[in-house]
Amino acid sequence: MSVTATPDPKIAYGPRVELQDLEDLYEGQQVQSFQPTPAGIDNLGITSVDTFKVPGMGEFTVEFNGYVRVARSEPTTGDWASAEVYTNLIEMRMEGDSPELGPITVTLDPECLSAGQIRTPFTDEHLPRPKKACRMAVGAQFELPRLGLTLYNKEPVVLTIDNVSAIPPAGNPGEGQIYRMLPLYNRADPEGRPVAYLTSLRFAMGTYLPAPAR
Amino acid sequence: MSVTATPDPKIAYGPRVELQDLEDLYEGQQVQSFQPTPAGIDNLGITSVDTFKVPGMGEFTVEFNGYVRVARSEPTTGDWASAEVYTNLIEMRMEGDSPELGPITVTLDPECLSAGQIRTPFTDEHLPRPKKACRMAVGAQFELPRLGLTLYNKEPVVLTIDNVSAIPPAGNPGEGQIYRMLPLYNRADPEGRPVAYLTSLRFAMGTYLPAPAR
Repeated sequence: MSVTATPDPKIAYGPRVELQDLEDLYEGQQVQSFQPTPAGIDNLGITSVDTFKVPGMGEFTVEFNGYVRVARSEPTTGDWASAEVYTNLIEMRMEGDSPELGPITVTLDPECLSAGQIRTPFTDEHLPRPKKACRMAVGAQFELPRLGLTLYNKEPVVLTIDNVSAIPPAGNPGEGQIYRMLPLYNRADPEGRPVAYLTSLRFAMGTYLPAPAR
Repeated sequence: MSVTATPDPKIAYGPRVELQDLEDLYEGQQVQSFQPTPAGIDNLGITSVDTFKVPGMGEFTVEFNGYVRVARSEPTTGDWASAEVYTNLIEMRMEGDSPELGPITVTLDPECLSAGQIRTPFTDEHLPRPKKACRMAVGAQFELPRLGLTLYNKEPVVLTIDNVSAIPPAGNPGEGQIYRMLPLYNRADPEGRPVAYLTSLRFAMGTYLPAPAR
């Protein structure tokens, strides 16, 4: 399971978090609220409800369940209010099943470095103990074996979590910031027109996963 | 002025519109409302009001004025309600001036193919004569000579125009879909952390420009 983020991605949606000194973090990890957490790799559960529009077929809402590994940088300061943290989504696997589309597996687009940031919203920088905001720009792929199709996005899915009082934001709900639709392309026809669209995405970060047996 | 879109971009935010058979369109062009317009290259004015947050310096709202060239594909059908049109932003130049930041010139990121689409919103597909929606994912660069800085985005700025009753949507207002902030990077330090953010972008498409003198 020691997957590292794409060493030489075609596309990087933000700065790389260096992995070499980071420890994998699992269940039992102590997290302090309103305290910047030291760098690490969070192994967390995740659930998501995604709606897909497939022109000619219809609109389908699918529940997903799985896990993510998120590499977090050292906070830029030791002070909660001013600290910024940079993140890379280095692994993701979510499984869903749709009566119409069949099973769907969501993983990271291997050609993309998915990257994000946790910081105090600019509008809240005057507060003594602000809630922070997370954002992550994600390149994903969606395997639909029943349709013989792998879909991927060329514009990142921007996942956001607000009201963050602890890092990682385990248990927080979040949203994919999609205005009307986000085009999905057929991996077998990368120069072609979109074949489906994401029209809505709501997710929730889970808690730390149990460490794997050694 | 006969610039062609990046022949081999590092990043393409959508399908390429082939330029070879497209005519440059200028002032005097007749456009029918609620009729799909034949393919072409629209030379249009544009204005924009962008807000930049520069951590450590402040937040600055700047008015821009300039032009765009938009390549439009042949509509997928001759019927307004079902027609889809694909677009590439193949040239852009906007000038602004800020008391604090100095002059700012916005052009296209030469490493990106900026791409978009005009179609009926999925929610309005049952209407006999729907208004259409435009979206365009844009890679831009912002030159700030007084600061010795060129900024660019690694996540596209998604520009949207709603309530479109004619193609091109000349004269329509639009928005950059930014949730809280969109990071901007320093071209001289592409692996580095963001140095500024776009926090708001509102634009308006102008009308057809006069044809250049021959």
